[in-house]
Amino acid sequence: MGQSGQVTTSTRIVLASRPHGEPTDDNFRTEHVELPEPADGEALLQTLYLSLDPYMRGRMSDAKSYAAPVEIGAVMVGATVSRVLRTASDAVSEGDIVLGYGGWQSHSVEKVAHLRRIDPGAGVPVSTALGVLGMPGFTAYAGLRNIGRPQPGETVAVAAATGPVGSAVGQIARLKGARTVGIAGGPDKVAYAKELGFDVALDHRSETFADDLKEAVPGGIDVYFENVGGAVWDAVLPRLNPFARVPVCGLVAGYNATSLPEGPNRAPALMGAILSKSLLVRGFIQTEFAAEQTPDFLRDMTGWIADGSVQYREDIVDGLDQAIEAFRGLLKGRNFGKLVVRVSE
Amino acid sequence: MGQSGQVTTSTRIVLASRPHGEPTDDNFRTEHVELPEPADGEALLQTLYLSLDPYMRGRMSDAKSYAAPVEIGAVMVGATVSRVLRTASDAVSEGDIVLGYGGWQSHSVEKVAHLRRIDPGAGVPVSTALGVLGMPGFTAYAGLRNIGRPQPGETVAVAAATGPVGSAVGQIARLKGARTVGIAGGPDKVAYAKELGFDVALDHRSETFADDLKEAVPGGIDVYFENVGGAVWDAVLPRLNPFARVPVCGLVAGYNATSLPEGPNRAPALMGAILSKSLLVRGFIQTEFAAEQTPDFLRDMTGWIADGSVQYREDIVDGLDQAIEAFRGLLKGRNFGKLVVRVSE
Repeated sequence: MGQSGQVTTSTRIVLASRPHGEPTDDNFRTEHVELPEPADGEALLQTLYLSLDPYMRGRMSDAKSYAAPVEIGAVMVGATVSRVLRTASDAVSEGDIVLGYGGWQSHSVEKVAHLRRIDPGAGVPVSTALGVLGMPGFTAYAGLRNIGRPQPGETVAVAAATGPVGSAVGQIARLKGARTVGIAGGPDKVAYAKELGFDVALDHRSETFADDLKEAVPGGIDVYFENVGGAVWDAVLPRLNPFARVPVCGLVAGYNATSLPEGPNRAPALMGAILSKSLLVRGFIQTEFAAEQTPDFLRDMTGWIADGSVQYREDIVDGLDQAIEAFRGLLKGRNFGKLVVRVSE
Repeated sequence: MGQSGQVTTSTRIVLASRPHGEPTDDNFRTEHVELPEPADGEALLQTLYLSLDPYMRGRMSDAKSYAAPVEIGAVMVGATVSRVLRTASDAVSEGDIVLGYGGWQSHSVEKVAHLRRIDPGAGVPVSTALGVLGMPGFTAYAGLRNIGRPQPGETVAVAAATGPVGSAVGQIARLKGARTVGIAGGPDKVAYAKELGFDVALDHRSETFADDLKEAVPGGIDVYFENVGGAVWDAVLPRLNPFARVPVCGLVAGYNATSLPEGPNRAPALMGAILSKSLLVRGFIQTEFAAEQTPDFLRDMTGWIADGSVQYREDIVDGLDQAIEAFRGLLKGRNFGKLVVRVSE
């Protein structure tokens, strides 16, 4: 294993067609191709772990967005932890474990300049470079640091509270002295949110959710970290305090939507709340802050994991052939923790 | 005139009932009361000019907002320029002209500590303390300085472009090196927006407005100063560039709305745009910045008026008995320039 001499083909999942609503099997195609060779400055990598994240649904569509869509016939994009099989650069060595953007495939050729070496002896699984120590963890860190800015004694709420972003948001906010409210789907996730240290954990599937939330935050909400959208946002908006901050990093509840929801049109009410409560609502993609703040993040988060003040949970699925079904589940909240595909060992 | 000995009664307009939709005559009541006496630290003022502003519609309702509603039976609130008739404080003298918050009445008693003396010899009418040198001008100044932050070469758009806030936004943004797009209602206002120096002036009443806007901003919009809402905002949203900033200081188009507009529900699309374009949308009330930045504003704006780089226009209505009808017109955009009631001379 890991000896490239024994492997001659690569398996990859490409975008076959653009989904209308929930992605179906027909939107993907699995291909087997000859193992590519690295050119100068590149390395051939064997994928160990593939990250599955909600943003990928956006890349399957050609609607205008912050990132170009995946082209039809192109490999589905995704962050990966891989082992270097062959290198045409001195910057990495055969056998190194690296974080890259290899996509949904068993092997990838990447520019070495785009890779980050991972220390497999650091005391945490290398797959955490896709979760708590990777993009989702950094999204939480950067969104709170640059936009949410929780102050001691303030109340911070987040949905998908047991997911990789939400769980990091809650735990970082608690470390900053905030009271934390975790919102999750179903009793198991609510129980786990309590384990994670959320001061309050609520089930958004409960029929009384909006009332439960109102009761849980008598002093209102100062920061709502928005990664879900939909009905949770509708319930949170009336609870926001004057000068509340809303970092918006995801709206997974609507990613499969094929048309605007039925009326009434709540956009004027949303703008009205923004005005009457002097709200700050700010969309962001973690890449905006990554170059400047990743070193701080890795230092802080590694320390918090080491001293036990941040916990994390991974939901590991075995085999690239499980990626499509796992991804569909992700868009419905079926995963429990950071969803990662173990592609090889 | 100005001799308190000759006056024994004050005329005032109180809130008689809360409006449902557009305010009607029944929502107001005119009363004549005995002239009040100033207590220690107070002054009795004769109102010269009363400012009429869209925010007053909000104060007539008891919906939760940043400011307490006007109580039923209480005098309608409003900024005023007045003459001191009698004073029980050394801080002002009889005959001084002061900026206060006297409300819709011919006389008021105010705490002297809340008044700002106005120099009637400064070369501009004292009524400008209610407009370009007052709250509306400062709203433009503070919203651009703290939230919009236009950079040279960027495009700044604003609606109600001939109004006191919009005209200041456009002219300040131009001074900062931005390209400016003014949106106004009707050919007269569009022509005046061009006079004010807007690089582009568009009529939102035109059937082709959305297309006109698209054509006018091939490079997109970097700052949209939101003081109107409604259909203009719907047309602007698709034109916003990544990382655009949207200071929200008013939504006058919806102030008389009695229910949520018909569907589809555009709130998820709005949140989607905030996410996909990393927008900053921030509601604000100028009071948030007033204590710290008013001195800078008065220095800058006085200079700009003196050297001709900022123009202003007043729409002066004569007589307190005209206030109600003028206010209704304001909510429909019938005023042309800063709407002020001349209450006495």
